[in-house]
Amino acid sequence: MKAAILLAHGSSDPNWLAPFDQLLARIRQQLDDDTHVRLAYMELAQPTLAEQVAELVTTGAHHIDVLPLFFAAGRHLRRDVPAMIEDLMRRHPSVTIELHAPVGLEPEVSAAISQVVTRQLQP
Amino acid sequence: MKAAILLAHGSSDPNWLAPFDQLLARIRQQLDDDTHVRLAYMELAQPTLAEQVAELVTTGAHHIDVLPLFFAAGRHLRRDVPAMIEDLMRRHPSVTIELHAPVGLEPEVSAAISQVVTRQLQP
Repeated sequence: MKAAILLAHGSSDPNWLAPFDQLLARIRQQLDDDTHVRLAYMELAQPTLAEQVAELVTTGAHHIDVLPLFFAAGRHLRRDVPAMIEDLMRRHPSVTIELHAPVGLEPEVSAAISQVVTRQLQP
Repeated sequence: MKAAILLAHGSSDPNWLAPFDQLLARIRQQLDDDTHVRLAYMELAQPTLAEQVAELVTTGAHHIDVLPLFFAAGRHLRRDVPAMIEDLMRRHPSVTIELHAPVGLEPEVSAAISQVVTRQLQP
């Protein structure tokens, strides 16, 4: 079974978190799968990455893709999250966890951002 | 003259900042305008919002749209940035600064994110 975790930064403000739930719902609908794709926050909110990895391992996951819902890869994705993943693989030796590139760097996403901004700024 | 500032969170890591420069270049090309659209960081990096507002005011801007390159509106966009903008309008009484909704909440952007994630997760 292939499992995935969408990883967002997290915030103490529930208003910040709400759109990520909507995004998860949309992705699950597109995939027609509501159990193997989870959402986790790196900090300041729950569920955490550790909680979601533990649950997915319990349901039999051997490989987990971690897809960062970040605009770019800074200190968090280059240092903090890899350290978390290394620790989680030590705690759960049956699972491989693979960290992907941030979704914001994908051409479709940056194209959509520049289209939206261009439209907002055109007279 | 209508001016705009794309506002990103900011990071001490130059790897995080680089994609925003590319995004700005793309937007300026689409708008065929490379002077009235600027990029600023809320914290941890330069140019700051205050620096860009001051420069745009010097070039004669009376209205500045601030477009947040954020996924969602949490504490930063609901409290910190409005306070910065209020302070900047007090310091520059000739300019109106208008804070827009975060670009990540625009339907095209969330559609692009869910498409990219769905494609990455499909077998």
